[in-house]
Amino acid sequence: MTRRRLRLGMVGGGQGAFFGAAHRMAARLTDRFELVAGALSSDPSRAVASAVDLHIAPERAYSDFRVMAKTEAERGDGIDLVAIVTPNHLHTAVARAFLDAGIHVMCDKPLATTLSDALDLEAIATQSGLLFGVTYTNVGFGMVREARAIVAAGALGALRVVRVEFSQEWLAAAVEATGNKQAEWRTDPARSGAGCLGDIGTHAFHLAEFVSGLRCEGLAAQVASFVPGRRVDDDANVLLRFQGGVHGALWASQVAIGHANGLNIRLYGERASLAWSVADANALQFARIGEPPQRMERAGPGTHFPGRLPSGHPEGFVEALAQLYDDIADQIAARLARGHPQPSALLLPNAADGARGLRFIDAALRSGRSDGAWVNL
Amino acid sequence: MTRRRLRLGMVGGGQGAFFGAAHRMAARLTDRFELVAGALSSDPSRAVASAVDLHIAPERAYSDFRVMAKTEAERGDGIDLVAIVTPNHLHTAVARAFLDAGIHVMCDKPLATTLSDALDLEAIATQSGLLFGVTYTNVGFGMVREARAIVAAGALGALRVVRVEFSQEWLAAAVEATGNKQAEWRTDPARSGAGCLGDIGTHAFHLAEFVSGLRCEGLAAQVASFVPGRRVDDDANVLLRFQGGVHGALWASQVAIGHANGLNIRLYGERASLAWSVADANALQFARIGEPPQRMERAGPGTHFPGRLPSGHPEGFVEALAQLYDDIADQIAARLARGHPQPSALLLPNAADGARGLRFIDAALRSGRSDGAWVNL
Amino acid sequence: MTRRRLRLGMVGGGQGAFFGAAHRMAARLTDRFELVAGALSSDPSRAVASAVDLHIAPERAYSDFRVMAKTEAERGDGIDLVAIVTPNHLHTAVARAFLDAGIHVMCDKPLATTLSDALDLEAIATQSGLLFGVTYTNVGFGMVREARAIVAAGALGALRVVRVEFSQEWLAAAVEATGNKQAEWRTDPARSGAGCLGDIGTHAFHLAEFVSGLRCEGLAAQVASFVPGRRVDDDANVLLRFQGGVHGALWASQVAIGHANGLNIRLYGERASLAWSVADANALQFARIGEPPQRMERAGPGTHFPGRLPSGHPEGFVEALAQLYDDIADQIAARLARGHPQPSALLLPNAADGARGLRFIDAALRSGRSDGAWVNL
Amino acid sequence: MTRRRLRLGMVGGGQGAFFGAAHRMAARLTDRFELVAGALSSDPSRAVASAVDLHIAPERAYSDFRVMAKTEAERGDGIDLVAIVTPNHLHTAVARAFLDAGIHVMCDKPLATTLSDALDLEAIATQSGLLFGVTYTNVGFGMVREARAIVAAGALGALRVVRVEFSQEWLAAAVEATGNKQAEWRTDPARSGAGCLGDIGTHAFHLAEFVSGLRCEGLAAQVASFVPGRRVDDDANVLLRFQGGVHGALWASQVAIGHANGLNIRLYGERASLAWSVADANALQFARIGEPPQRMERAGPGTHFPGRLPSGHPEGFVEALAQLYDDIADQIAARLARGHPQPSALLLPNAADGARGLRFIDAALRSGRSDGAWVNL
Repeated sequence: MTRRRLRLGMVGGGQGAFFGAAHRMAARLTDRFELVAGALSSDPSRAVASAVDLHIAPERAYSDFRVMAKTEAERGDGIDLVAIVTPNHLHTAVARAFLDAGIHVMCDKPLATTLSDALDLEAIATQSGLLFGVTYTNVGFGMVREARAIVAAGALGALRVVRVEFSQEWLAAAVEATGNKQAEWRTDPARSGAGCLGDIGTHAFHLAEFVSGLRCEGLAAQVASFVPGRRVDDDANVLLRFQGGVHGALWASQVAIGHANGLNIRLYGERASLAWSVADANALQFARIGEPPQRMERAGPGTHFPGRLPSGHPEGFVEALAQLYDDIADQIAARLARGHPQPSALLLPNAADGARGLRFIDAALRSGRSDGAWVNL
Repeated sequence: MTRRRLRLGMVGGGQGAFFGAAHRMAARLTDRFELVAGALSSDPSRAVASAVDLHIAPERAYSDFRVMAKTEAERGDGIDLVAIVTPNHLHTAVARAFLDAGIHVMCDKPLATTLSDALDLEAIATQSGLLFGVTYTNVGFGMVREARAIVAAGALGALRVVRVEFSQEWLAAAVEATGNKQAEWRTDPARSGAGCLGDIGTHAFHLAEFVSGLRCEGLAAQVASFVPGRRVDDDANVLLRFQGGVHGALWASQVAIGHANGLNIRLYGERASLAWSVADANALQFARIGEPPQRMERAGPGTHFPGRLPSGHPEGFVEALAQLYDDIADQIAARLARGHPQPSALLLPNAADGARGLRFIDAALRSGRSDGAWVNL
Repeated sequence: MTRRRLRLGMVGGGQGAFFGAAHRMAARLTDRFELVAGALSSDPSRAVASAVDLHIAPERAYSDFRVMAKTEAERGDGIDLVAIVTPNHLHTAVARAFLDAGIHVMCDKPLATTLSDALDLEAIATQSGLLFGVTYTNVGFGMVREARAIVAAGALGALRVVRVEFSQEWLAAAVEATGNKQAEWRTDPARSGAGCLGDIGTHAFHLAEFVSGLRCEGLAAQVASFVPGRRVDDDANVLLRFQGGVHGALWASQVAIGHANGLNIRLYGERASLAWSVADANALQFARIGEPPQRMERAGPGTHFPGRLPSGHPEGFVEALAQLYDDIADQIAARLARGHPQPSALLLPNAADGARGLRFIDAALRSGRSDGAWVNL
Repeated sequence: MTRRRLRLGMVGGGQGAFFGAAHRMAARLTDRFELVAGALSSDPSRAVASAVDLHIAPERAYSDFRVMAKTEAERGDGIDLVAIVTPNHLHTAVARAFLDAGIHVMCDKPLATTLSDALDLEAIATQSGLLFGVTYTNVGFGMVREARAIVAAGALGALRVVRVEFSQEWLAAAVEATGNKQAEWRTDPARSGAGCLGDIGTHAFHLAEFVSGLRCEGLAAQVASFVPGRRVDDDANVLLRFQGGVHGALWASQVAIGHANGLNIRLYGERASLAWSVADANALQFARIGEPPQRMERAGPGTHFPGRLPSGHPEGFVEALAQLYDDIADQIAARLARGHPQPSALLLPNAADGARGLRFIDAALRSGRSDGAWVNL
């Protein structure tokens, strides 16, 4: 019997949205999903027009996500998974609706606009027993997983220092005042919750915990809104205290002129160090004490994560996001086959990871308001 | 009326093949094709098993490409396009069968194993009036197209020097003797035609002509089979003479230890220079005379080719190949709508470009056999 | 009348010492000094042997720096300048002896092993009216001065973020226990005062203030001795609060496996950013908002600091140190000619800058001992 | 007894000249030479003024190099070595005068403006029994010597491919028509002999033979004068045939916009590859087959050439040139002590290497004039 493609629905991501399109490309790349339903916009005519573009049948082009959840749950061929790609303030309500309807969820980060919403959602997701993925996309990069595996295998020895940065230029001036839709909602506290802390800081924070395998226990943060008139943070400069006294630093900035999207992480242990950067996403720098540093390439010598293409053929952002879709497809397929959870269950960020992002945002904002005082996480 | 997805067939690319999978990912990424038929293997049981994996209906899982061409041409819902991803020696026969059946073709390079076959195929393709794309994948990278546009706009002034390299390590030892299937057919003259000249040299050659907008008029080549026992060339070191006396150099090597897949091109004109490398595929180095060199990023300041994702979110090999599928989809859609050819018709490599690759191989091999004497192209 | 070479003496730097040799190379490179006297070692026979190697006349090969100061001050052809390259704990006493004798001083950093000693020395130096240079060598690199000038000219607009790192691998294991002389005194609190904070942290701190033109007002620091048994700090992870709310981060580590000597600084303003690294010391990365980043090379397009060699001919560490010797030679020559101070007086680090380094060390150690609490500087 | 400094004289290098100053810095850096005599300019008043600047006694400030050679040879304290840094057309006559006077020579490259002059000079130098160094400066870089040692030790196995490039922007426009003195003599066939082939091509050629340990047996070259009105070559694109069928490529260009001084070399063997670039002069890229590439740093793990400074402290062009002065100082000192030649005799480029540079120029120009035909060397 042929393994069928899973049925995917989407909330948000209509015409003009960026990240919904990325999700769809990622899902298609895996060849394990078929997009069959959507509440792509709250504007009904735009919802339908967007659905037509995507070959979604008219009767499954919803303008109300609650209707969509209910209707799909009742269909014999209803969706297996919903992807939530709305602005942040809607994540909670949408996720709740689909979880209530018994449908697995893949949700963008940050999980919510407040810590309490995020904790509620984490509880609901946990109680539901359903799958709940959170698209911290960068942990889908093959070499990020390779890095995690190297650390976990003990090749670095005990960790000493973890440094992570996510820097972007695009909000260095007040572009939200010039009609840029992306900038508008991302700098509107009501819709985004936080600024750079939520948009990119949570990525950096999750990446640091994901690769290091360590929990952050506390932080001290400088948080600023450097651009006059801006209503959310646009630069956060943070010390992190990891388990066991490991030194940590995190910088998230959307006023970092010269960086389109400068995510990187470095880890130093007693025996070796590792560095990865999205600008060179298919490689890792690996240095053992007293030896010349090495450049490891995805699928190249000494690596274990093959990816989709041979070494030297660059994989990008869509492949990373597709990896998360592959992870959740593995889990859904195992459930459909009444099998055991797959190993990638440990790698796919879940609701707890999502809520942890809000803990980070909350702690950083509180520290920032207290002149950088230390705050426990 | 909804714009339908185009129907795609594939010849070659069954289980275990690398490049067929890349084609399928690329086609899916565009969301403009649906894979509905295939002669994925000449082994019938493998053909069927491969088709099942890919959700191809059993009755469209062929083991004979001629049967497939004939049958699909007769169906009301027959394929719009066939992708040919067999070993090189089959390209000509397969392409001919589908052209004869009136079906558009997307064919891997090199077009054929002999120059005369390639010229025949070019003639047939031209006479057919059908679309014929050749997957010189690298010219699908956004920044390669940006580079071509910059040169075409005259920003470099008259060109003086063009340098291109494609270097790989993977055949530095006799891996074809160790059971590596990819290495086996690629180093078998009967199936590949040439070695590194065909496999990667043709990519480099097309890239040089594509970006520079110049025709190569002659060459002098050192061609070697450095690995003992190897039956095809594994290193070619070539001087190129472009129109107007522009100096050119091309290096293609599959014994280049340290390079997973080191394609790069540099162009120097009277007013500026440009450099691009697949290792940093989302950027261009651009230097105007007397000014500090600049790094231009895809979708970033000063660029015109947006790609699929915002600046700083890396696009990779699959996106490049998808661009070629987008190009041919544009053309097919225009024909279906009885419209004019789309501008990308000028960018999609065609049968003439494919045949030109064989001219290059032929000239380089002849020069190599004549102690590097100059040979006109 | 011929401009004579200035007469240079040296305290410390005998056979086996590294940094004394670097000072001598730097002084020779300028061609403005002649090494004529030295107390190169406190061991008399080694002092003489070292002097012979350096073509110093036997009667000016001292084993006691106080005798040297007194004797040289009395000679008609006594030294114009003394270079102090002893372990840190001797800096104060030696400097005081030469200042008392009326002789200009060039002293290694950190200025002292305690803040109070450093403040005393600053006071003495100021009262003496003599020249007092401190060899924060990195501010002698041409492109560091270029960076400072770019910031000072306002090209970045108001600064927002300053990030500086100085990372080394060499103390990642307990090499002080293996007979390494450099490691021994540098990890001995009695001789070094502090660990990585003094050895490299002070360099990073001065560099940040030098290039930004801003004063640091407070800091919060994680300070560790990661290597078991180590008696001084080997990693310091610091938030800096600069004037006007500018965010700052400083990392100094001598357990950073993979980095031979990784000093770098980045500055982000409202209109542009700058980055410099000692690993690419002859260049600056400069990015204006909304424009492609540029690479500026020393003596290349758009630069103002020519250095000693044409663009593209790398200058290194010795040239940077030589710049400081050129700076002080300018001042000494101006005084000998009864002229005005030269502009480079503003660039040569002085006793106040040296004392400021101790303020930084003291504040960081206090913060570290208080679980990273904020400390004013 | 104190080892005395050697006495150095200089011909050329007066006020305004660049390369004479570099030689003097290099000689001072070694601390083994004292500049005591010079014919720094053929203009007597400029010769004297230049000498005064350099602390040369007035009676040893010559305006005629023949007088200088004769006079110095007759002095009891005459010079041990003369550095020749005149324009190329004078090298032969000056070198001959000093060799005739029994004085060792350090001469800039290219050795002469014609092959026959160079061969004459080689013969004279050989017959004289005197030391004759040629300042192919780049082979003085520590990591270039490390590269040569790695190749010589067999770590690459049999070589297959050698690629070398030397590219500069500075003559991309007709700057010789704008009053640039350096450009004037270097593009004047009478004074320079050749253009980029002599100025930088000879460096690249010597570097290739030095590191590979192989002799080039033949070449095919495209040679152009791209800038209208230019009287010498400004771009040379060359295939090299090394002993044993090793493939070689050399590119020398002074119209290469974007490159201040882009010298680099790569070598590929059957077991490993190596790459070095002057832009990262303190490192080597080293890749063994089937292993991740490594970055080796001068004085770092796995290296054998310590240089003057610890790892991570960059050494530059002056240090490289100083190495050649150290090499010749070793030989002179050994002769003064009636000792055996020192091992560095094998590394210091000599008159035969200088003449070989002219063979290269001559062959490349002949090939260029014959439409790129192969020419034996």
